[in-house]
Amino acid sequence: MKMNNIEMIEGGVCAAKGFKASGIHCGLKKVKNDLALIISEERAAAACVYTQNKVKGAPITVTRDHVSDGYATAVICNSGNANTCNENGVEIAEEMCELVSKHTGIPANDVIVASTGVIGKPLYIEPIENGMTSLIENLKDSDEDCIKGIMTTDTVEKRVAVSFEIDGKICRMGGIAKGSGMIHPNMATMLVFITTDVCIHPSKLRKALSANVESTFNMISVDGDTSTNDMVSVLANGLAGNDIINAENSDYETFCEALNTVMTYLCRAIAKDGEGATKLLECRVFGASSIEIARKCAKSVICSNLVKAAMFGADANWGRVLCALGYSGANIDVGKIDVAFMSSKGMVKVCEKGSGINFSEEIAKLILSEDEIIIDVCLNVGYCEATAWGCDLTYDYVKINGDYRT
Amino acid sequence: MKMNNIEMIEGGVCAAKGFKASGIHCGLKKVKNDLALIISEERAAAACVYTQNKVKGAPITVTRDHVSDGYATAVICNSGNANTCNENGVEIAEEMCELVSKHTGIPANDVIVASTGVIGKPLYIEPIENGMTSLIENLKDSDEDCIKGIMTTDTVEKRVAVSFEIDGKICRMGGIAKGSGMIHPNMATMLVFITTDVCIHPSKLRKALSANVESTFNMISVDGDTSTNDMVSVLANGLAGNDIINAENSDYETFCEALNTVMTYLCRAIAKDGEGATKLLECRVFGASSIEIARKCAKSVICSNLVKAAMFGADANWGRVLCALGYSGANIDVGKIDVAFMSSKGMVKVCEKGSGINFSEEIAKLILSEDEIIIDVCLNVGYCEATAWGCDLTYDYVKINGDYRT
Repeated sequence: MKMNNIEMIEGGVCAAKGFKASGIHCGLKKVKNDLALIISEERAAAACVYTQNKVKGAPITVTRDHVSDGYATAVICNSGNANTCNENGVEIAEEMCELVSKHTGIPANDVIVASTGVIGKPLYIEPIENGMTSLIENLKDSDEDCIKGIMTTDTVEKRVAVSFEIDGKICRMGGIAKGSGMIHPNMATMLVFITTDVCIHPSKLRKALSANVESTFNMISVDGDTSTNDMVSVLANGLAGNDIINAENSDYETFCEALNTVMTYLCRAIAKDGEGATKLLECRVFGASSIEIARKCAKSVICSNLVKAAMFGADANWGRVLCALGYSGANIDVGKIDVAFMSSKGMVKVCEKGSGINFSEEIAKLILSEDEIIIDVCLNVGYCEATAWGCDLTYDYVKINGDYRT
Repeated sequence: MKMNNIEMIEGGVCAAKGFKASGIHCGLKKVKNDLALIISEERAAAACVYTQNKVKGAPITVTRDHVSDGYATAVICNSGNANTCNENGVEIAEEMCELVSKHTGIPANDVIVASTGVIGKPLYIEPIENGMTSLIENLKDSDEDCIKGIMTTDTVEKRVAVSFEIDGKICRMGGIAKGSGMIHPNMATMLVFITTDVCIHPSKLRKALSANVESTFNMISVDGDTSTNDMVSVLANGLAGNDIINAENSDYETFCEALNTVMTYLCRAIAKDGEGATKLLECRVFGASSIEIARKCAKSVICSNLVKAAMFGADANWGRVLCALGYSGANIDVGKIDVAFMSSKGMVKVCEKGSGINFSEEIAKLILSEDEIIIDVCLNVGYCEATAWGCDLTYDYVKINGDYRT
């Protein structure tokens, strides 16, 4: 698959030059890997975006501080405990960075730290301290163990990598993601780690990340609950050898396109692997008078429990789509809205100018029985569009999240 | 039960003087009652509030018009079809009012009309027309048939009545409500019809209704989906004989208190009978710096799928409560928040100053296994408070809403 000069390649966070990764089981979870490390051989330009929840995990406070100068060299991440709403949380998160420093020589304030797991359970440093030697020994050119260290109830590994050309140099970018669940289900925390060997100034990296987050990670919803620990980070170590990207020129645009490809891929993967999900839902809104309205509408549809439950049941219940558009808060003209459902099996138009039209329920059922469903909404008042991703609401979502923690 | 001079009494919309009600099966649903009528023997002051969904059922357009002069005499309501997103919806809703007029002599524009059911399915007037004679014949001093005519997947009848004294006269007020489901599940439509024999000016009635809606019906959520057809209406026919309430004096306050009692009762009943629900959840937020913040926080907790699923599982997962407060949009100081869970079995404090505290999981489980749960949140920054009502998220919610319509 090739998009302009962006090409999908094998691998994840180790696809770009100069990145190694490792993952081990240190004892925070019963059996599975629970500690992960990503290291760049050069100090890298770094940018992060964080949850907008007012209740924030301690690792977010620490990472925000460490990345404030625009650079970082390593990422340490544990699963099994969110280190959130703990009295000594910031202390523990700082200690995690210091352990990386002690074992690698990287300054502690060049380390990004992330945690995912149960809120309000004290996180002890000992298991992590005891695991550090083997975590370092495990460093390799593949993220096979690392990705397991960040996973919780994820049912599939979510990784992607691309190559592209900037300034005559072959560049690579790759990422891994976790979402959405826990061994002891708790928060649908989303963690995304992206690495690239592109040489780019931290201010431009930050701008590229922020711009892309709006149309990607801010457009997915598994259950409408914004986690306390969400984080997306990008490290760019410059080893591809291109002249530094320091302006919004065509190289910057290529970089943004690569970043968008990686982030969109991971978004879809996270939504599809939502807790208990059997289907990926994609809502595309066209013909809006502004991009904000398009986004509001797309997200409202994706977040509606009634739409999600209907999709689980392969029910072409388009009234629920209109209802979700109606309470989205966006200023819409109901009498102009068209709605269609699509999948690899075909397309069925169900609503024209805000009123139902005759359609074959049988064909609709067939289309909606696929595992990737597109809900197309045309507002017919302008030229702006947006896409949002989500998943269906299933018995298993309730089961996963209704079970007792202990 | 007696609150100041408000006393709970038997009955519903026929408790107040001069109101009769009827209900029949006219053929919109397979077997159950699907058409209901409430009539006052005198023209009554009338006030309604409606869904804020931009997609509105045709009956709402018609009712808004009919009530604009502040008076109405009758309510007709069908279930089984929402009469929403239909090309000729307004025409049909007007015809329903004209049928009432033809059979009773009440002017069509003094009739309130409401519908609940599947969206986008044409509503034909014939079954309603054919049922009118028996609907009129069925009129009686009890709402036993009427309430069945407005119910859909409701599992219990929701009615309440109170008596109180104004101006030395015994007054009565009663209401019936439906929410939240359909025989062919679709929208969690909420319809509430309240009647009283108090004599009150339409402008004061409107004000009393609006003020009370903020703290009652706007504070419940079954699934976060705002229906296209929600409506709360009050008819006050003046037959109690009190001097007209035309100022915000102590009589107005008594009236508001009675209205609040009726509306709060119906709110709790609707939330508890939410689709698939096994538990009523009540979130009480104290110590807020404003009532708006208290409301935002209470609603955010009640709407969180993760909190709802935890309550289904009787899991004292207070981290989810904090998480919901954090993304509520309210400006809160996380480090000051206390959280406790309560039920008839007792109380357990789980979070103090934003951090977890030791508590007995066993006792918490016992408390949360009851069918009415209170989540107490103290923000500890001010003196304002609010309460919101919801229900747990269960397998049955998914089942009811995932099933195929036809």
